[in-house]
Amino acid sequence: MGDLAGVGRIVDSCRECQHCHAGDEQCCEEGWTVVFNSKDRKHSGITYGGFSQNIVVVENYVLHVPKTLDLASAAPILCAGITVYSPLKHWNAGSGKNIGVIRIDGLGHMAIKIAKAMGANVTVFTISQSKADDAKHPGADQVVVSIDVAQMNNCPKQDIILDTVSAKHNVNLYLKLLNEDGSLVMAGLPAEPLEVGTFSVTNGRKSLSSSSIGGIAETQEVLDFCAKHNITAGIELISIQQENEAFERLENGDVKYRFVIDMSTLK
Amino acid sequence: MGDLAGVGRIVDSCRECQHCHAGDEQCCEEGWTVVFNSKDRKHSGITYGGFSQNIVVVENYVLHVPKTLDLASAAPILCAGITVYSPLKHWNAGSGKNIGVIRIDGLGHMAIKIAKAMGANVTVFTISQSKADDAKHPGADQVVVSIDVAQMNNCPKQDIILDTVSAKHNVNLYLKLLNEDGSLVMAGLPAEPLEVGTFSVTNGRKSLSSSSIGGIAETQEVLDFCAKHNITAGIELISIQQENEAFERLENGDVKYRFVIDMSTLK
Repeated sequence: MGDLAGVGRIVDSCRECQHCHAGDEQCCEEGWTVVFNSKDRKHSGITYGGFSQNIVVVENYVLHVPKTLDLASAAPILCAGITVYSPLKHWNAGSGKNIGVIRIDGLGHMAIKIAKAMGANVTVFTISQSKADDAKHPGADQVVVSIDVAQMNNCPKQDIILDTVSAKHNVNLYLKLLNEDGSLVMAGLPAEPLEVGTFSVTNGRKSLSSSSIGGIAETQEVLDFCAKHNITAGIELISIQQENEAFERLENGDVKYRFVIDMSTLK
Repeated sequence: MGDLAGVGRIVDSCRECQHCHAGDEQCCEEGWTVVFNSKDRKHSGITYGGFSQNIVVVENYVLHVPKTLDLASAAPILCAGITVYSPLKHWNAGSGKNIGVIRIDGLGHMAIKIAKAMGANVTVFTISQSKADDAKHPGADQVVVSIDVAQMNNCPKQDIILDTVSAKHNVNLYLKLLNEDGSLVMAGLPAEPLEVGTFSVTNGRKSLSSSSIGGIAETQEVLDFCAKHNITAGIELISIQQENEAFERLENGDVKYRFVIDMSTLK
């Protein structure tokens, strides 16, 4: 009674395959149901997402939002948060590890906060000096301006680099900065293929990898982790009436770091 | 007394860095000394390789060749053998695992034999139907002609795919065939960069990776492993006088699978 329920990107899956049984619904063999624009598994329609006053979701796919979290700024944990938490945990981010984060945006600023809370030393890579100052706020230990060759050459080797860039870019520059057995994990998912030099991964047995969101159990885990470490997203709370304006600003990268819509403004 | 000594690709390294201490000389921070065309660390010259009657190598970099192995056909274990053994072991090839091998060549035929001896189920990918028959000899369980879309679609998911192709090719076709957390490991080292679609690795948290040869201790391990499982390379033994002809045939891919020169023919 009185619990706060959260709904993330995954609202259903086949519930039968080995991955669903293992709690890796994001790997469901039939493909999982996205909260919006996805075919509803039970009814004939599609899913309409969260821009509504009510949403009906199968109970196994509903999360419990810890009460200590601010509701608006906790919302992005269900997407950006789990998207970075899952690979950081899988590739063993933690104390004594050097974690790189490329780009300070919605995913990036959450990655910095979560990796710091895991005990890691966090280096942020950005192409702009002005953004370099922003990186200090969520708690980055170092900032490297990646178009500055000297700074890149002096950068300590990283165990994991989480790459949140969504456009085509040169990943070989970052693969070079990995320690032996290090992983560059793509979280930004550029639509165009990336050019990977084999020799960028050969010496030191490095990997280029990626992961997709995270399962329901792990999403609950990141909510609890964030509550424990008092982590929420940097947001700008808007009314539903500001939505079109927000989309325009989003296209210009003018938000730190996520818009959250107050659905009580929908009359 | 009377031991057979073997010399592989690595004949020296810094011997001081963390990787050398860990037995990962192939990751030496100063770079390792290749048996040929490499700067000699002690003397001013370069290394001349194995086309000679005598070779002097620091004792830590000399291997012990088990007496049960045929000397000529064991020679490629020191290069092709360790190059495929090291990643197969690192990514846990073994009983219950599906291992794919792309291309049946010097590396590929050794990978088939070694993965089979590790207990894995081995699928070979080849572009030519005529080569498909060759794959059965070293012990492949299945052969998939990779330009046959139906065969590729019906191929069971693989845990590791060892890619021995040395020219540019479409790795996305093979990334699709990996199981969750599977790795495509580049052993062929194409000079040109490969185009990797991020979505080829995202669903299922797959990795594109590579590894370079293997350390000295692990090279000894693969020699002993091959002796235990009676594994040697398919070779054609030639005299030093046939060397130029062999180079021409090599360029035409006309060898199954390695030329080995009998150095006693050098007078």
